[in-house]
Amino acid sequence: MTRIRFQRNLDDLKEKLLVMAGMAEQSIQRAVEAYRVRDLSICDLVDRGEMAINRLEREIDQMALDLLAMEQPMAIDLRFILAVIKINADVERVGDSARSISDRVRALQDFPAAEMPIDIPRIANLASGMVRRALQAFIEGDADMAESVLKMDDSVDKLNGSAHTTLLNLMKAQPVLAPQALNALMISRALERVADHATNIAEDVIFWVRGADVRHHMGATAARVNSHAAGGQTVPGSQ
Amino acid sequence: MTRIRFQRNLDDLKEKLLVMAGMAEQSIQRAVEAYRVRDLSICDLVDRGEMAINRLEREIDQMALDLLAMEQPMAIDLRFILAVIKINADVERVGDSARSISDRVRALQDFPAAEMPIDIPRIANLASGMVRRALQAFIEGDADMAESVLKMDDSVDKLNGSAHTTLLNLMKAQPVLAPQALNALMISRALERVADHATNIAEDVIFWVRGADVRHHMGATAARVNSHAAGGQTVPGSQ
Repeated sequence: MTRIRFQRNLDDLKEKLLVMAGMAEQSIQRAVEAYRVRDLSICDLVDRGEMAINRLEREIDQMALDLLAMEQPMAIDLRFILAVIKINADVERVGDSARSISDRVRALQDFPAAEMPIDIPRIANLASGMVRRALQAFIEGDADMAESVLKMDDSVDKLNGSAHTTLLNLMKAQPVLAPQALNALMISRALERVADHATNIAEDVIFWVRGADVRHHMGATAARVNSHAAGGQTVPGSQ
Repeated sequence: MTRIRFQRNLDDLKEKLLVMAGMAEQSIQRAVEAYRVRDLSICDLVDRGEMAINRLEREIDQMALDLLAMEQPMAIDLRFILAVIKINADVERVGDSARSISDRVRALQDFPAAEMPIDIPRIANLASGMVRRALQAFIEGDADMAESVLKMDDSVDKLNGSAHTTLLNLMKAQPVLAPQALNALMISRALERVADHATNIAEDVIFWVRGADVRHHMGATAARVNSHAAGGQTVPGSQ
């Protein structure tokens, strides 16, 4: 395989991961919409989306494996492919979280609608935003942007913690609403896990970018930023 | 690096992953023990264990990366190293689940002790058993054993589902116990996630073993079982 062909395959791999991440993000938005309007037909979309995401996960793993098998990748490409493999697993689990929310929405159909005093869409937007930014950091190979994702996680944890307290108090005050409150709490937790996956992705981006940098510093310090901007045109064997 | 040296490094990698998995399993057992006897000093052990597990995760990733970078691994070794990287991430999250349980035990200190009508240690044993068997399947490269782990997941899901119902009913009947019930429910959920990680590990083992098999079948069908038993003595470039 020529270098140009290899680079094109890397780009395809990245493209496929981004498509999958877009689907996962959409699934979260849909699942929260299903919760908001109590619409099971949206749950069906989420469930089908999760299956499509699972298929993509396997395809991406296989593509990554084939790329590793076909030629000895340079250090920076190797690190990139490994980052894809790890990010792939986390994106797939964002899809799982959407599915968990959709399961909760179905379970809620057995109980009368009740307004819950927590802002699920807000937590969802924050968590989705983290996933989006983590992927953006990945595309741009920007460790600083990835670090900003880690900071966002605190806000989601705080919102989730306060949702926990609010809903617990509601359960104590109005035990008849316990099922609805518990479901809302589980949805909030699922969104917290989405934020955790975004955090994992951001950490992988940092590991990929900074690790590559460390290796570069051994050989060609000044070329670092440029080589990244140009898509990793480093010298083979520079590690 | 000689082939023998490479094989020894692969063995070291596997060994390190098993040490880490043992620590993660111990953390789960400790966290559940902390819950059972309400002992915060055990929580401290779990928290320190989680940090040690996190360090090991990074070390294993780095070892795997170095092995991939040093020489062009054969197809079966490549797949093995990728399985290690994926399993590594799941084992680390088993450690996170132990930490979640430990956090819940701390939160419970604010409330009077109350016996909960669910069997947390039983769920923990099942989930830990799944992790152990998934790792065993990995050591032995045994896809059938890995499949048996997938079946065990149903039992954990069922136990967790019935814990959910039981605790919800308790909250409705005795709202004053809602905090304790909710904490028990969250611990049960954390254990369900441990089982999910075991499932992920088992799936990675199947992908690793069966994938390797598929590639083998292209060349030397009959040698498959023997080559696995002998630690993957396949012909370089057989893919």
